[in-house]
Amino acid sequence: MTWIAVDWGTSALRGARLDDEGRVIEERSAARGILSVPAGGFPAVFEELFGDWMRAPNARCLISGMAGSRQGWIEAPYCACPAGLQDVAAHIIPVDGERVRMVPGLSAEHDGVPDVMRGEEVQILGAMALTGRRDGLFVLPGTHNKWATVAEGRIVGFRTFMTGEFYALLSQHSILARTLDAAASLDEAAFLQGVTRAGNGQGLLHNAFGARTLALFERMPQAGLGSYLSGLLIGEELRTASLRATGEVVLIGSPALTQRYALALHANGAATRTLGAEAAWAGLHALAHTA
Amino acid sequence: MTWIAVDWGTSALRGARLDDEGRVIEERSAARGILSVPAGGFPAVFEELFGDWMRAPNARCLISGMAGSRQGWIEAPYCACPAGLQDVAAHIIPVDGERVRMVPGLSAEHDGVPDVMRGEEVQILGAMALTGRRDGLFVLPGTHNKWATVAEGRIVGFRTFMTGEFYALLSQHSILARTLDAAASLDEAAFLQGVTRAGNGQGLLHNAFGARTLALFERMPQAGLGSYLSGLLIGEELRTASLRATGEVVLIGSPALTQRYALALHANGAATRTLGAEAAWAGLHALAHTA
Repeated sequence: MTWIAVDWGTSALRGARLDDEGRVIEERSAARGILSVPAGGFPAVFEELFGDWMRAPNARCLISGMAGSRQGWIEAPYCACPAGLQDVAAHIIPVDGERVRMVPGLSAEHDGVPDVMRGEEVQILGAMALTGRRDGLFVLPGTHNKWATVAEGRIVGFRTFMTGEFYALLSQHSILARTLDAAASLDEAAFLQGVTRAGNGQGLLHNAFGARTLALFERMPQAGLGSYLSGLLIGEELRTASLRATGEVVLIGSPALTQRYALALHANGAATRTLGAEAAWAGLHALAHTA
Repeated sequence: MTWIAVDWGTSALRGARLDDEGRVIEERSAARGILSVPAGGFPAVFEELFGDWMRAPNARCLISGMAGSRQGWIEAPYCACPAGLQDVAAHIIPVDGERVRMVPGLSAEHDGVPDVMRGEEVQILGAMALTGRRDGLFVLPGTHNKWATVAEGRIVGFRTFMTGEFYALLSQHSILARTLDAAASLDEAAFLQGVTRAGNGQGLLHNAFGARTLALFERMPQAGLGSYLSGLLIGEELRTASLRATGEVVLIGSPALTQRYALALHANGAATRTLGAEAAWAGLHALAHTA
């Protein structure tokens, strides 16, 4: 049987052909996130990108991510936390019979306000399979970061932080954009200065203005301001996420982002372990063989 | 003598002709904030708007606000806190001899990070003159809000909060813009629900995402989402501003904004008193007669 795993997000799409043990035989990616697909256009994009793979005998595909949202290919209703591999697998829905199926997202609730994820649950399940961890804190940086708590092999709850989107808004559209060089590479010292500053507990609304005045008073070189702002944001996230890690924090995401979270977590005395794209493939493989 | 008071900000400009007691004889405003004035263009804009007033015998003008910044007409170096009427008056600089003069802004410092205001110090001095208050907390909502502490008639310190700018960014440019009606009028119940939510201490980066999920799960009508977000932001500001008010909090600003701060402060058990444009005229009048 040919197994095809697809992680179809908001702005990008990745697919992999896996062998029976879940090893990647071939990988593809495209800037065809759901926002770029017109209504009704999902089967055509899928055929264009994976049609050749799907023509193999007994080909099966499992898709996770925003493709399962209301704005996606087909809506896969959320699975409520706490949820482990079995729970998520039980909520998988058919897209094209049994050949193509869709993984649901997860929902949680905090004092009457819902929280949601789509795709990250698969990465967390994959990270659990790859690391053998059945308890602990899993952090997935991105546009909308997820902090998930895992206990006895199930995701018991999670929270979303809009840190990535706030960084983009502030560095590109706010008054800070006038003095900040968004293309500058990471300045670790300035980043950690921001992390430390966030620890004053005076909040992002106040501390962000410091990125303006430090520039005005020439107290920080322009090249460091973006890293300082990034440190303020990630530091604020760490401060308010009420970090209760037992053991290493598992970071899952792109190297550019997980590097920053590792720096900030280490500065706060936490140990980390980092995974990348392999977490999604491991999660889809585990789900495919559970469902 | 004819006294002309001008509050020249980033996006707007207001001027008033005052009598010897500081009463407004005539008021003018224009969308000619410093961002709309080309380099070297300040004398021409000033002449266009106030030339007739300035041709009166013995006309004198005092200007406050961003016109005194590096990007303005002439840079008036900051006066450091603590600063009262005498201190600010002593830092006034000539623009066109003694006929036209510029009020400096104030600077403060918190743990190595500077903070600044330009124009608000005049409104605070004016509010002190109008209310007789020589101690207490003065809050000036706007794009970049100022919270100033006054003791024995001097501004001893202040902090800036980018609350207004964050609201504009989130309601117009973030994922929240998709479900939020920025033109909807204030929904007090939704606003106070946001203020209460901010009190959970889980931070803006997380709580802001709730404005998305409440819409997704149809837990809040679209017309209330803007007010809810505004409540989240102002609630976060109140929570982190370490409010230590003795007596009424003095609010200075536009009715649309001071109304929201009054609602949020009342919900937190604080009493308020509100002033509008008259504070700037009273401050410029007091400075003109001190200098």
